[in-house]
Amino acid sequence: MCESCGCGDSKLVPVDVHERILEGNDRTARHNRHHFEEDGVFAINLMGSPGSGKTALLEATASSMRDRGRFIGAISGDLATDNDATRLRRAGIPSLAITTGQACHLDAEMIHEALHDPPWKKLDYLFIENVGNLVCPAVYDLGQRANVVALSVTEGVDKPLKYPVMFRKADLVVITKIDLLPHLGGDVSIAAITDALSRVMPNPIHIAVSARTGEGMDAWTRWLVATARP
Amino acid sequence: MCESCGCGDSKLVPVDVHERILEGNDRTARHNRHHFEEDGVFAINLMGSPGSGKTALLEATASSMRDRGRFIGAISGDLATDNDATRLRRAGIPSLAITTGQACHLDAEMIHEALHDPPWKKLDYLFIENVGNLVCPAVYDLGQRANVVALSVTEGVDKPLKYPVMFRKADLVVITKIDLLPHLGGDVSIAAITDALSRVMPNPIHIAVSARTGEGMDAWTRWLVATARP
Repeated sequence: MCESCGCGDSKLVPVDVHERILEGNDRTARHNRHHFEEDGVFAINLMGSPGSGKTALLEATASSMRDRGRFIGAISGDLATDNDATRLRRAGIPSLAITTGQACHLDAEMIHEALHDPPWKKLDYLFIENVGNLVCPAVYDLGQRANVVALSVTEGVDKPLKYPVMFRKADLVVITKIDLLPHLGGDVSIAAITDALSRVMPNPIHIAVSARTGEGMDAWTRWLVATARP
Repeated sequence: MCESCGCGDSKLVPVDVHERILEGNDRTARHNRHHFEEDGVFAINLMGSPGSGKTALLEATASSMRDRGRFIGAISGDLATDNDATRLRRAGIPSLAITTGQACHLDAEMIHEALHDPPWKKLDYLFIENVGNLVCPAVYDLGQRANVVALSVTEGVDKPLKYPVMFRKADLVVITKIDLLPHLGGDVSIAAITDALSRVMPNPIHIAVSARTGEGMDAWTRWLVATARP
């Protein structure tokens, strides 16, 4: 935990306060997980930097998944605005916005409150689109079955090394916006990004996609179907 | 303050703990500010998302500023690696890395420790390149004279609305990577980004640059020189 926050190393916040926060969160996360299992909903904590393409990925995912007879929904977290949930609803995805005010991540309690909305039970997948942030969201269990991190090629190649906590906890990294690769500097390549991932992730799995051209979307939806198998 | 951290709204961390953290930070920030004023160093808190181009902006800034007879240095914060400080030193910029471990932002105490290194006194400008994060760094005063936020065109147009705390506190927003504009979707434009900035910033000042092509760099260095005038 950091000296100011539950997200990093602590100098100032008393250890018992930190522990109480994370214990309380983990308790609610277990409760959420129980709900998801009971209702047969595969929950994914989708994280990434601001502008890493999380919403565009979900927009493109909806129709591919519908073709496979699977239905997805989303809870989108942002400090302000419900822009993402509105975009997703336009793409036919039942979506709810959580506005966090000044908070830098979603927590299990926010998700628990959102779960009182009954339509989630009919879904196959619930994507929890976290606040755009490569640090704090990694620390808070929400009750998900899988952590997916969206990493845009425009962010450069060394983000896994600079933000290792996030990438260490990822079950999958979706490398996004690959249609922009030809326009970036010569040192940005999928090979360089996956090399960085392999230094941090215990089990480095990644899929490179462009939500705009559709490249890689088939591999991503196949991963979703295979991973959600009971 | 958020329920887990000094960065957002609090439900769980006791109010007195939050207040003590921010009061302690502000006290050290005042101390840092006094040092900067005494030594005639103009300190800038440079913030932005991971991959928003903060380091590339500084690399490109060094030579433009040298041409104007001004010398810059940098302190670069990241959870892990000293990649940015290494890159900046290669560009001739005296630089120090602060690795924060799991902490999501720099604080005044970290900067104060770094200031014990004597070369800073000879600089005209000290750029404090914060951890890549559009939320938490906005809350912690470091003793800087100006807040500058780097916002890449690849992050889309609505980030100022989604992360208003960061943009509300910015003295200047540098819109980066404008060389990529022709390759992005039709709804991404400088006009759309500046429209979003004008809804959040009390005094919306922005400069659009490409560190790669050099476009806009002259306006940026002119802003630096004009703003640092006593």
